[in-house]
Amino acid sequence: MSTVSLVPETRVLAIASHVSHFVKCGHDPHISYVGNKMATLVMQLLGCDVAALNTVHFSNHTGYRQFKGTRATAEQITELYEGLCQSHLTDFDVMLSGYAPSAAAVEAVGAIGMDLQRKAEKNPGSFFWVLDPVMGDQGRLYVSNDVVPAYKTIIHHADLILPNQFEAETLSGIKITSLSTLAEAITAIHATYNVPHIIITSVDLSRFTQSPSSQTTTPPDSLTVIGSTTRSDGPRVSSASTSQPWTATSAAQVTSPDDKVLGVPRRGQGHGSPSARATVQVLASMHSVLEKTMEARDAELRAADTRGDETLSEEERLKREHLRKSKAAEVRLVRNVQYLREPTVVFQAQEWRKEDLPAGSQ
Amino acid sequence: MSTVSLVPETRVLAIASHVSHFVKCGHDPHISYVGNKMATLVMQLLGCDVAALNTVHFSNHTGYRQFKGTRATAEQITELYEGLCQSHLTDFDVMLSGYAPSAAAVEAVGAIGMDLQRKAEKNPGSFFWVLDPVMGDQGRLYVSNDVVPAYKTIIHHADLILPNQFEAETLSGIKITSLSTLAEAITAIHATYNVPHIIITSVDLSRFTQSPSSQTTTPPDSLTVIGSTTRSDGPRVSSASTSQPWTATSAAQVTSPDDKVLGVPRRGQGHGSPSARATVQVLASMHSVLEKTMEARDAELRAADTRGDETLSEEERLKREHLRKSKAAEVRLVRNVQYLREPTVVFQAQEWRKEDLPAGSQ
Repeated sequence: MSTVSLVPETRVLAIASHVSHFVKCGHDPHISYVGNKMATLVMQLLGCDVAALNTVHFSNHTGYRQFKGTRATAEQITELYEGLCQSHLTDFDVMLSGYAPSAAAVEAVGAIGMDLQRKAEKNPGSFFWVLDPVMGDQGRLYVSNDVVPAYKTIIHHADLILPNQFEAETLSGIKITSLSTLAEAITAIHATYNVPHIIITSVDLSRFTQSPSSQTTTPPDSLTVIGSTTRSDGPRVSSASTSQPWTATSAAQVTSPDDKVLGVPRRGQGHGSPSARATVQVLASMHSVLEKTMEARDAELRAADTRGDETLSEEERLKREHLRKSKAAEVRLVRNVQYLREPTVVFQAQEWRKEDLPAGSQ
Repeated sequence: MSTVSLVPETRVLAIASHVSHFVKCGHDPHISYVGNKMATLVMQLLGCDVAALNTVHFSNHTGYRQFKGTRATAEQITELYEGLCQSHLTDFDVMLSGYAPSAAAVEAVGAIGMDLQRKAEKNPGSFFWVLDPVMGDQGRLYVSNDVVPAYKTIIHHADLILPNQFEAETLSGIKITSLSTLAEAITAIHATYNVPHIIITSVDLSRFTQSPSSQTTTPPDSLTVIGSTTRSDGPRVSSASTSQPWTATSAAQVTSPDDKVLGVPRRGQGHGSPSARATVQVLASMHSVLEKTMEARDAELRAADTRGDETLSEEERLKREHLRKSKAAEVRLVRNVQYLREPTVVFQAQEWRKEDLPAGSQ
């Protein structure tokens, strides 16, 4: 690896979950967040120094439907950060905050983000907080109800948030069933939380009630990433009239045993905003690594030793099969770093056409 | 990175300490173990899939002389392993066990190693347990006294142990002050614990009371790695007459603020045992990465903002300086992966000459 393929030197504080068993990411009804094991390794492979503050310590990801381990308390999260502070180890360029196991933990993470912002006040633009408001997926919360208002309080302070479709609905109070409700939700999130950058990490356009022309190339079950940035050089501007929404379609569904990679690179007109450019790079990397993962998964399942399965009860057999498929689908990252850095597919972001936006937001 | 530079596919369970703040390794009076953050990342960069089971969760390494965080209990360590077992995630090729925070935790780690050995019984040679008996350094224990007998019990089951000089003394009951006492200690460890591979990770030959010819090229304060493998194709043979000791001299002292890289590559006759070959590769990688670390450390210290230091008390000023030096000396790994994989220096292992061995062991 040459230093050419590395990102600029970046010091990252990553506050998220840790699972012992290898790495996991992606879209899965049971776990839609990217844990610290994957996030930390990816950022390290790209050349970032990452301090990992783990919010849970689990044996394996929850997609296996069983796991053991412990959750960090808010006090433990705060204490680790205080340890960094007392030794002057808080000169981070970026904070990435993901899953936190309770409302108090979300508040503790929020306090850390705000403290880092205060410390960076002297150098405007020197600190960037990426917040993944992990609350649920597929129409269902998988955190306790009080986590939602906790996120609603801290999101005001983040620079970029990464909700999935359900989380965007939860934050906006708007059910996303069409391009216009999607645009309304984005508008509402910008306006309500004054957050300058939003990337909705997974929207299933094929299920929308409307059928605009932009959907004709969207295969069923693929996911579209929608981004929006307020157009402003000065103070944050949050009205929809200043937003620059864009879309990029991909498929990142290999990690659930029953999923398939269905991505069709979209070669529409390119959209050049920084977050759009970053997203298409991420999608291309994910797509390439997940393709390699799927090949390895299929090979592992073909070679699987299923002897003894016939002696199990039907329930036990299905459970065993689920565990086998979950294990086979673990992301193959360490052997495929070159595809992370130099993906073999090209995605392009597409500007969201004005006619797709609801009246009043154009 | 091409796959050419990767090691063969290896699934590793790494049970060791986790610190949030970046990575740390090396020889330091305050912390001489390689924590999981460094060990996991190095193995991942070389292409291993690593499951990290963390025994402590600290904000930063203890060389800063202050840190916050929590220690895992033996029950928590065991529970995480049970989580892996219940989902059939224990097909590891290698287990690397490092720091455990109590005697009960050492016993829990030992039970995990033995369980993995039992699971691998059907495929002899398919599982290898590397055990770093972290107990102390520089003549002093930094674990509680009951950790020592706990290690003495589990070491019988390991395939390779990595004591430093003090730990080798503790395990053998022999004070190492000369080549002959060093050989006696190795002989005693092989005999007492029936362990086939021993690598003593740091011996300071320059302080030995004897001065054999092999020391003439050893610079003061450099460290020599001593290895020994029982020569056996069948059952383990533990007498010294079957051991093949070798040495390799390096210097891995950058991580303590006051240390300097002093390594002089030794170009003696090469020694071809697998553990010797692996060790010289590790030394070359460490040396190259630590050279880059030292350059970056010096640059960081030259650029350090020391304004305000003059207003501090002498004690506070020294503390601030120590923290600054500790931070500057954090290992620069993610930006220097090419030096890990393709180091710029060459070390060679040297066979330990028969005349250096004590009578009766030749």
